[in-house]
Amino acid sequence: MDTIILTKDDVAEIVSCVGLHQLMDDIIDELRKTFRNFDDDLTQVRKRDGFSYLTPFPGVLEWMPVMQVDEFAVIKLVAYNPANPVLYQMPTIVSTLSLYNVRNGHLMALTDGTFATALRTGAASAIASEVLANPNSKVIGLVGCGAQAVTQLHAHSRLFDIKRVLAYDTDNSVLASFPERVRFLDLDIQIVPRQELEEESDIICTATSVGLDAGPVIDGKNLKPWVHINAVGSDLPRKIELPLQLLNESLVCPDYRAQAVIEGECQQLSADAIGPELIQLVKHAPEYKSYQMKKTVFDSTGFALEDKAAMQVLLALAKEIGVGRAVPVESIAVDPMDPYSFARAHIEEPAPVASVV
Amino acid sequence: MDTIILTKDDVAEIVSCVGLHQLMDDIIDELRKTFRNFDDDLTQVRKRDGFSYLTPFPGVLEWMPVMQVDEFAVIKLVAYNPANPVLYQMPTIVSTLSLYNVRNGHLMALTDGTFATALRTGAASAIASEVLANPNSKVIGLVGCGAQAVTQLHAHSRLFDIKRVLAYDTDNSVLASFPERVRFLDLDIQIVPRQELEEESDIICTATSVGLDAGPVIDGKNLKPWVHINAVGSDLPRKIELPLQLLNESLVCPDYRAQAVIEGECQQLSADAIGPELIQLVKHAPEYKSYQMKKTVFDSTGFALEDKAAMQVLLALAKEIGVGRAVPVESIAVDPMDPYSFARAHIEEPAPVASVV
Repeated sequence: MDTIILTKDDVAEIVSCVGLHQLMDDIIDELRKTFRNFDDDLTQVRKRDGFSYLTPFPGVLEWMPVMQVDEFAVIKLVAYNPANPVLYQMPTIVSTLSLYNVRNGHLMALTDGTFATALRTGAASAIASEVLANPNSKVIGLVGCGAQAVTQLHAHSRLFDIKRVLAYDTDNSVLASFPERVRFLDLDIQIVPRQELEEESDIICTATSVGLDAGPVIDGKNLKPWVHINAVGSDLPRKIELPLQLLNESLVCPDYRAQAVIEGECQQLSADAIGPELIQLVKHAPEYKSYQMKKTVFDSTGFALEDKAAMQVLLALAKEIGVGRAVPVESIAVDPMDPYSFARAHIEEPAPVASVV
Repeated sequence: MDTIILTKDDVAEIVSCVGLHQLMDDIIDELRKTFRNFDDDLTQVRKRDGFSYLTPFPGVLEWMPVMQVDEFAVIKLVAYNPANPVLYQMPTIVSTLSLYNVRNGHLMALTDGTFATALRTGAASAIASEVLANPNSKVIGLVGCGAQAVTQLHAHSRLFDIKRVLAYDTDNSVLASFPERVRFLDLDIQIVPRQELEEESDIICTATSVGLDAGPVIDGKNLKPWVHINAVGSDLPRKIELPLQLLNESLVCPDYRAQAVIEGECQQLSADAIGPELIQLVKHAPEYKSYQMKKTVFDSTGFALEDKAAMQVLLALAKEIGVGRAVPVESIAVDPMDPYSFARAHIEEPAPVASVV
């Protein structure tokens, strides 16, 4: 009984075969479909839970489970360690995705979740923008130009005709390397003061590692009246990116409300000040058309349903292309009543020692 | 950045090299050491949580996390599907174990958890018996002779001088195959009526798939005054194996109290009727010596600390023997600020097509 394992090289091979643009398009399509078809009775989503630690550096290791009743479960393990880039030359977010058969418990597949997280986080924001932003948006502002900014911009470039990209980061070295990292998009990247970014952008994506109680990261006073903001960075209690006054002036839509009130921008709001979830926006997009000319916020905390969609895309492409390896991980016994039976052949019939000639 | 994967064949190779007895001894030793050295400040254990489902057949998929602060976390995924043996020729319990570095979130290893669960569940009971049972116990009774009974008996045979094994199961086919499954222990197995088992046993292990609200599985009226019972089967709310009156007459020690009150025998008891946890028994064994001649119960629900110990033993032996494969699973970017950088070489420098001569 095998587990399909996609390695880093398999995923790179998928990227090589289909290209980054097609891959992003596939993830956006799958995610849109997942939201559109979402049925509360058939899908169980759990808000993330995990271990947090302060030593040697602050970080969290979290699990995010989702189950499609009678079909499968996906559990994402994701670690958030802001010290990773400096200490280990590793990304802040490191993750894996596991797919289980909920009829017998078998681990069907294990894949990377780091790349998948970046892709689906970009895709989710672009889908929120598709419903809530001015459809003629030409200027996108990026507050925080780390890893997540790359996929935020990439995903938006697939759904909007972007003419100018305004980039801002408190870390000059991050800012300096950003144009090179998104060179493949062939867009006009302008490094600008934050005030200019706020004034000029039709869409803003905030994706920062701002500290606890250290937000907000924008001023929010001179924004376009139709600005749509994807607030991607807040994912911990007391970590926020947007000023309360801006939230109060905007329609604020969380991806997953139960989680956003704990760790998203929604932690700043009372229950009746929170708008519909992203799933509702997608299911009933025409009803929200009037908001395209008003201020809106997508409060993105990231949730397991998105990861399920991304994993499905990766596994389907892997199958199509013929990459991935099948490995028997579980020591499934030959006799289900005998936990040792899988090893009996080894115990009772040891392989003959090869005779050295 | 590689993940060590132990396959079923690697684990079989470990068994082949060290033998089942040495492996069980290693797990017992590691588990005893883990309990003895347990420090609440350095180890965080979470009680299991998961998805339960009723269709197509009742089952659960659960996660059981434990973190050693500043070192690592182990997360066990375990599914319990009682219909597995009949429907899929698979064991009721199917499981994998994952080891994470809590400094950067990297998945360090993935191994089977099915075999490991069976081993550590047997080992935990044997350790409880070591503290609480009559040290001269010669007769062990097994109520329920499925997969778990094999390791319960095996583990006890390593710590006690067992002269007679009394076997009982409501399923005659399970009972009939039991002697063959434990033939490697070379013990005197007697299939007996349940009443005789209860009267004659010094130690009883109950490991049944009794249904919800269908317990208890023993009568408990004619037991030896010093009987020690390892109640292994109860692992769901409303699933119990022992009669309340017997619990009231006995010192009842859970493995992990917070979990046992929800799904163990302890769900039948008020808070003040519950004895110390297994960890306390092991840490302060001499203080419990007087209970060796009284009725005692180990309420085993299974918890992540035990899995951590079993995984450590398997990984250490794998390293020693030289089995296991190193696979890069996470798509760790070359540039932590660029989620696409791991695939850049594939995108920008496609491998030249090999010329066919």
